[in-house]
Amino acid sequence: MITFYHAPWSRASNVLWLLEELGTPYTVEKVDIRAPGGVPEEYRSIQPNKKVPAIIHDGILVTERAAICTYLCDVFPEAGLAPAIGDKLRAPYLTWLVYADSVFDPVLAAKAHGHEFMGSGYSYGSFSEMVDNLERTLSSRPYIAGDRFTAADTQIGGGINFGIRVLKTLPEKPVFLDYVERLAARPAFQRASQKDFAMAQEAGMVPG
Amino acid sequence: MITFYHAPWSRASNVLWLLEELGTPYTVEKVDIRAPGGVPEEYRSIQPNKKVPAIIHDGILVTERAAICTYLCDVFPEAGLAPAIGDKLRAPYLTWLVYADSVFDPVLAAKAHGHEFMGSGYSYGSFSEMVDNLERTLSSRPYIAGDRFTAADTQIGGGINFGIRVLKTLPEKPVFLDYVERLAARPAFQRASQKDFAMAQEAGMVPG
Repeated sequence: MITFYHAPWSRASNVLWLLEELGTPYTVEKVDIRAPGGVPEEYRSIQPNKKVPAIIHDGILVTERAAICTYLCDVFPEAGLAPAIGDKLRAPYLTWLVYADSVFDPVLAAKAHGHEFMGSGYSYGSFSEMVDNLERTLSSRPYIAGDRFTAADTQIGGGINFGIRVLKTLPEKPVFLDYVERLAARPAFQRASQKDFAMAQEAGMVPG
Repeated sequence: MITFYHAPWSRASNVLWLLEELGTPYTVEKVDIRAPGGVPEEYRSIQPNKKVPAIIHDGILVTERAAICTYLCDVFPEAGLAPAIGDKLRAPYLTWLVYADSVFDPVLAAKAHGHEFMGSGYSYGSFSEMVDNLERTLSSRPYIAGDRFTAADTQIGGGINFGIRVLKTLPEKPVFLDYVERLAARPAFQRASQKDFAMAQEAGMVPG
């Protein structure tokens, strides 16, 4: 059984989508990351920055999105979301999962805050290098790791969708819009979006 | 066969250590990341930010350090550097590998540049949260993922060593010094340090 520590419309939302793709039962433990007094200190034993997501699977804690994806998809190989060890897509799959956390997210956050870090002192390079890398890759193949959908698409694709529609900092390149449209057609994406919307509504985050 | 794209005394140095732990043959392809005119544009097809490390294994490219470690240690399980799928250390192993790239590195870089990012807009939290997390974890067990050495120690341990001795931004907590001392006693660590020093010397980076 999986316990999923989640907040609607947050960095955990792509993991909600992953769980819907996985098709294995999970329970949602809501974490009020927007609470005025901050997240209760008790939650730090689950996630050291008191952030979401985190999961507990059979009593085992996993944090960091790329780790959660790698872990879960290897434990549930029947979902077909991870190229197995020895598969030639394993390398780009892992590379893109980690890139989502180590490059894509911090670069997008820096851009949204009006910062750009380009020097060698930072590990993640510039906004334009990141956009170019995504555009080059998605111009050459339908999914981020290759010719088939993997868990890496939930993280990169969910991130591109968020960057275009919510942050509005990612350019609306045709190749990005096509990719997001292809992903949004997936039933698991739609279920996750609906569940996240319902949770956001319940939390009073939806106007009107 | 493994080709390793490397620059001495860089973010790739912990992967050099990993390769020495792995004990499988590799060739080093030097990338002059400090070249006055920048790294030649051709290198971008290997690494999208023209950074190191990158590896090619049997014609397959892997970038992002956590991905390189996960990939290689699963492909060479006989080295015993990765808890296998199903092992209860797999989750903390993956979590810490990703944490090294997604939290530890950007937080340390921000600190070294005089920035600190604490808001929810950034994924990686504050410097003190990161130091506390490392201290709490290493106070409870000898290695970062548990009771035995894994590839996650090359990334976190190498990072702590760098943060204390080179950047001098990480505090010299006894638990950090003990951990680094335990790791530095490993023959593979010593071979990697010597090779990296020799390459730094060859590149004119070692003062007279």
